[in-house]
Amino acid sequence: MAEIKEYGEFALIEHLTKSFPIRQSSTLKGVGDDCAVIDASDGKTVITTDLLLEGIHFDLTYCDMRLLGYKSVVVNLSDVYAMMATPRQITLSLGLSKRFKVEDLERFYEGVRGACKTYGVDLVGGDTSASMTGLTISITAIGVTQEPVFRSGAKPNDLICVSGDLGAAYMGLQLLEREKAIFNQQDPADKQEFKPKFEGREYLLERQLKPEARRDIVAELMERGIRPTAMLDISDGLSSELLHICRQSKVGCRIYEERIPIDYQTAAQAEEFNLNVTTVALSGGEDYELLFTVPLADYEKVSQMSGIRIIGHITDGKLGAALITRDGQSELTLKAQGWNAFSAEDKSQGL
Amino acid sequence: MAEIKEYGEFALIEHLTKSFPIRQSSTLKGVGDDCAVIDASDGKTVITTDLLLEGIHFDLTYCDMRLLGYKSVVVNLSDVYAMMATPRQITLSLGLSKRFKVEDLERFYEGVRGACKTYGVDLVGGDTSASMTGLTISITAIGVTQEPVFRSGAKPNDLICVSGDLGAAYMGLQLLEREKAIFNQQDPADKQEFKPKFEGREYLLERQLKPEARRDIVAELMERGIRPTAMLDISDGLSSELLHICRQSKVGCRIYEERIPIDYQTAAQAEEFNLNVTTVALSGGEDYELLFTVPLADYEKVSQMSGIRIIGHITDGKLGAALITRDGQSELTLKAQGWNAFSAEDKSQGL
Repeated sequence: MAEIKEYGEFALIEHLTKSFPIRQSSTLKGVGDDCAVIDASDGKTVITTDLLLEGIHFDLTYCDMRLLGYKSVVVNLSDVYAMMATPRQITLSLGLSKRFKVEDLERFYEGVRGACKTYGVDLVGGDTSASMTGLTISITAIGVTQEPVFRSGAKPNDLICVSGDLGAAYMGLQLLEREKAIFNQQDPADKQEFKPKFEGREYLLERQLKPEARRDIVAELMERGIRPTAMLDISDGLSSELLHICRQSKVGCRIYEERIPIDYQTAAQAEEFNLNVTTVALSGGEDYELLFTVPLADYEKVSQMSGIRIIGHITDGKLGAALITRDGQSELTLKAQGWNAFSAEDKSQGL
Repeated sequence: MAEIKEYGEFALIEHLTKSFPIRQSSTLKGVGDDCAVIDASDGKTVITTDLLLEGIHFDLTYCDMRLLGYKSVVVNLSDVYAMMATPRQITLSLGLSKRFKVEDLERFYEGVRGACKTYGVDLVGGDTSASMTGLTISITAIGVTQEPVFRSGAKPNDLICVSGDLGAAYMGLQLLEREKAIFNQQDPADKQEFKPKFEGREYLLERQLKPEARRDIVAELMERGIRPTAMLDISDGLSSELLHICRQSKVGCRIYEERIPIDYQTAAQAEEFNLNVTTVALSGGEDYELLFTVPLADYEKVSQMSGIRIIGHITDGKLGAALITRDGQSELTLKAQGWNAFSAEDKSQGL
């Protein structure tokens, strides 16, 4: 295993980035100068950035470096798609403690490269540094759009839509945490033999460890000529994101518990953990699905899209944000119970 | 002192960023959506990013939060100017351990706001997160240029120029480290009374703690119609940066020891520390001055610029990169002895 300090910063960056091709004609200059240079003259430029810290956003006990590289890119691209934009470039900065070897970095960059290939984006710059402690990852993604979709354009009577299903990534995390706790309780002699119990829960693990950004949904919206009035990606839980739309669009909403899309594995795992599956879907986080609103006139077009569920509608702001329960009998006020990065009590994970 | 967790991520970001005005007409949407949106259609877009980690890049024993905020922005803008570009927007991500209070963040953002005002850039996005350990700062800067200047365009016979003077920030750091060590050796009872000895060394401290980016030099180059063939900012020491130009332009260089610009305080402090001042200037780092090459035909124009020193010339690549000593008798091969982020032995600091 090669030590990082045997390289030196510039040689290391060169070693790690040499196998990244440039795919975008808008990338005029990638890694290797004071700045990257891009041609962003053919639309409006969107920019997003995320900071991922070991022990807060990921746990290398169960998160392999390659998957972590992939996920770190995807969570940023998800924000770009949520603007109805196409991602084109990313920059990547890493802070590394001494316990990481060059091989660890190679695996991380392999994951980054995989995500760049899948989504057609170029790695154009970044920074690599020592760290006193764990692994620090900072990614900035840049994209282009003719006309961005904000959170602020929802109007009363608009339909509220979500892609895919919700809560699976959160249940995947709970499952990984349970198996980690069991592993830690084993006698040292038994740890070698330890096999975590994941049968029948593969979908939950995949949603937690290898999420994808919903490029397909954005492409289909464009093809069908559907322009959402508001859109964002669900990273902190459905409730929290709906409240962003309500606050920024100055509207209210009604969503229906029975309409919230939930996978069978999510429901089964929630039951096993004695958790309310609706709460999991509302507050779990890390779904990276799209939440968007469309005018009522687009009802038919949206209904024809596979993998899109209409879960409710936008109301006048005075009516607040509420969930209509499964029995249709009560309205529960929606609260942002998503991950709070600064609350030590809340053990859920967010990116 | 307010605890960060009393806010919540979104309220905290809103609190900290509410007093940031939008100055650039190219900023279409700042903080508050999945992405910022900018109009970058009037030129080529340049992007740079830096990761600053507590204990590696800064020491809060002597680096006040306000100055740190200022410096964190400036070091990124310096990279933008080095492309002959104008910075317009930044994003800022912070990872914060529990020991930081809201007031600390307010001071940090005060420094960021000061730099944004001085250089006319907009804060358009970012991310705020808990950290298990110290303070993590990640900044991305975006700028525009009609035609970027790379490191790769230097030609034999071009003149090598530097702005300002070199080595001062490094000597400032050594001075701060010395006083910190003395402070730590005091009896607890004497620590209250401790006054570091900084008289006559204010310039060194300023260069270390509150560097500025050389916007003025870029503006003057443009005014005088001088287009450098290669340019970069000196962050890792003159030697290291010259070698970047030589390698990327496939040329060699000769620089003259007697021509390297050094401030009186830098020289005096180097002598006090028994350091060779030329080595300090070549390898110190964090100068944030501009190093650039111009065609010989621009000799007169460049000579008229105040604060620019011609320190040598570009040669054929076969001749390598060397320093001609003060007595004119020997040629010393230049080595990149700048800061190595992964070498535990090297205690110098870099950004």
